[in-house]
Amino acid sequence: MAFDLGGTFVFALSGATAGVKHRLDLFGVLVLSFAAGNSGGIARDVMIGAAPPVAISDWRYIAVSILAGLITFYCYRIINRLSSPVLVFDAAGLALFAVSGASKALAFDVGPVGAMLLGMLTGIGGGIVRDVLVREIPTVLRTELYAVAALIGAAVVVIGRMLHLPSFAAALAGAVL
Amino acid sequence: MAFDLGGTFVFALSGATAGVKHRLDLFGVLVLSFAAGNSGGIARDVMIGAAPPVAISDWRYIAVSILAGLITFYCYRIINRLSSPVLVFDAAGLALFAVSGASKALAFDVGPVGAMLLGMLTGIGGGIVRDVLVREIPTVLRTELYAVAALIGAAVVVIGRMLHLPSFAAALAGAVL
Amino acid sequence: MAFDLGGTFVFALSGATAGVKHRLDLFGVLVLSFAAGNSGGIARDVMIGAAPPVAISDWRYIAVSILAGLITFYCYRIINRLSSPVLVFDAAGLALFAVSGASKALAFDVGPVGAMLLGMLTGIGGGIVRDVLVREIPTVLRTELYAVAALIGAAVVVIGRMLHLPSFAAALAGAVL
Repeated sequence: MAFDLGGTFVFALSGATAGVKHRLDLFGVLVLSFAAGNSGGIARDVMIGAAPPVAISDWRYIAVSILAGLITFYCYRIINRLSSPVLVFDAAGLALFAVSGASKALAFDVGPVGAMLLGMLTGIGGGIVRDVLVREIPTVLRTELYAVAALIGAAVVVIGRMLHLPSFAAALAGAVL
Repeated sequence: MAFDLGGTFVFALSGATAGVKHRLDLFGVLVLSFAAGNSGGIARDVMIGAAPPVAISDWRYIAVSILAGLITFYCYRIINRLSSPVLVFDAAGLALFAVSGASKALAFDVGPVGAMLLGMLTGIGGGIVRDVLVREIPTVLRTELYAVAALIGAAVVVIGRMLHLPSFAAALAGAVL
Repeated sequence: MAFDLGGTFVFALSGATAGVKHRLDLFGVLVLSFAAGNSGGIARDVMIGAAPPVAISDWRYIAVSILAGLITFYCYRIINRLSSPVLVFDAAGLALFAVSGASKALAFDVGPVGAMLLGMLTGIGGGIVRDVLVREIPTVLRTELYAVAALIGAAVVVIGRMLHLPSFAAALAGAVL
């Protein structure tokens, strides 16, 4: 859960940053931060049959996305000092989401290959939607490391679960990788 | 139901108009009018777990979309006399969809925040898909009023329901706003 | 099932070819071949309420997509000798998917109109996602024949089922058309 909310936050930051770069107004930035932060999780929940998706039913996901959007919109100078901030947020969100996506898929009795795939999808889904909405070719298609990192993070969780490791330790290992 | 079909019709008009503007042939226009008219509703139904979506199972949604596509394709001159017709249809469809989306989400026991969010999503989903398919940055990201209107329309329905107002009155108030 | 896997393979080829054309690296090509090969089927499964989608739960869909991506990436010269290879793969995948999509929808008790629509959607979904990801206006919107072919293929299966024809014969007739 903490992984999921954390991933939503950093992906929402990446969406909002992309929105400010494309000179969107406040509401456009908020829509983009929600879309970037929650598309991956919504896709995952819809695919494992968990209706309604937590991003809709749990107000904290919405609150976290709006918070990230507001911070980015009003404190853009600070965020912009980071070199390539979208990429940094992407990498962090990716790790967090790949882990939470794979864990949730395992809890819903999807097989190990499916759980890895869903973890990866949760990780890259938000970035794809963000890039498509502002008409860029998705980062995941251009940057080799990106999807590989998501896949490895998800794989570590799945393997950890199969070896009956404590789930938090496995999640942490997956995220760090 | 009437709100839903009405929203599908005007959004399908907006999709078909965008299609004719991009010089698509008849079938492309029909695909775009179906996508614009029904994407929001399909996303809503998938998220609340109502399978299959009414846009698939109820032939009237398909009929209404095709009708809107044919009217636009063969009577484009009349529609084009309206100033910025896509925006006008968008606003009307948005209001109708935000209301019907929020009502349906409430009927499926999604909480009030989720119902507002789903109402808004139903309202803006069709326009987003339409704009992505013809490679434009979605109107909702560029026009502040747009998403705010959808959110307010959905909020009125949810609040009306919580106050036990007659649902039709609440729906009407939401749509007018 | 064979139709479904075959459709996934040729659509994955079309996705990978588009990826190589846009000079993506190996991993981008694999992501695009998975997206092109499985988006239509995932959308269909989500809409009929079959969670998780077979593309996630059955490892063969993933294997077939990766295989198509690897073949295309390392033997691009051979594939490129075909005239307009993306279009050829599209047509083949379309036929196979329209048939398998309509059959599966019928098995899940969607009505005949809905089954036709879902068959068509399964057929065109992969190509739409592929084109959106590499920022092109989807082929289905520009090429009249394309969606019509998918619709006819799906219609043949549905009509065949209603006339109690042997399902394999109907599927074959649909695919050939």
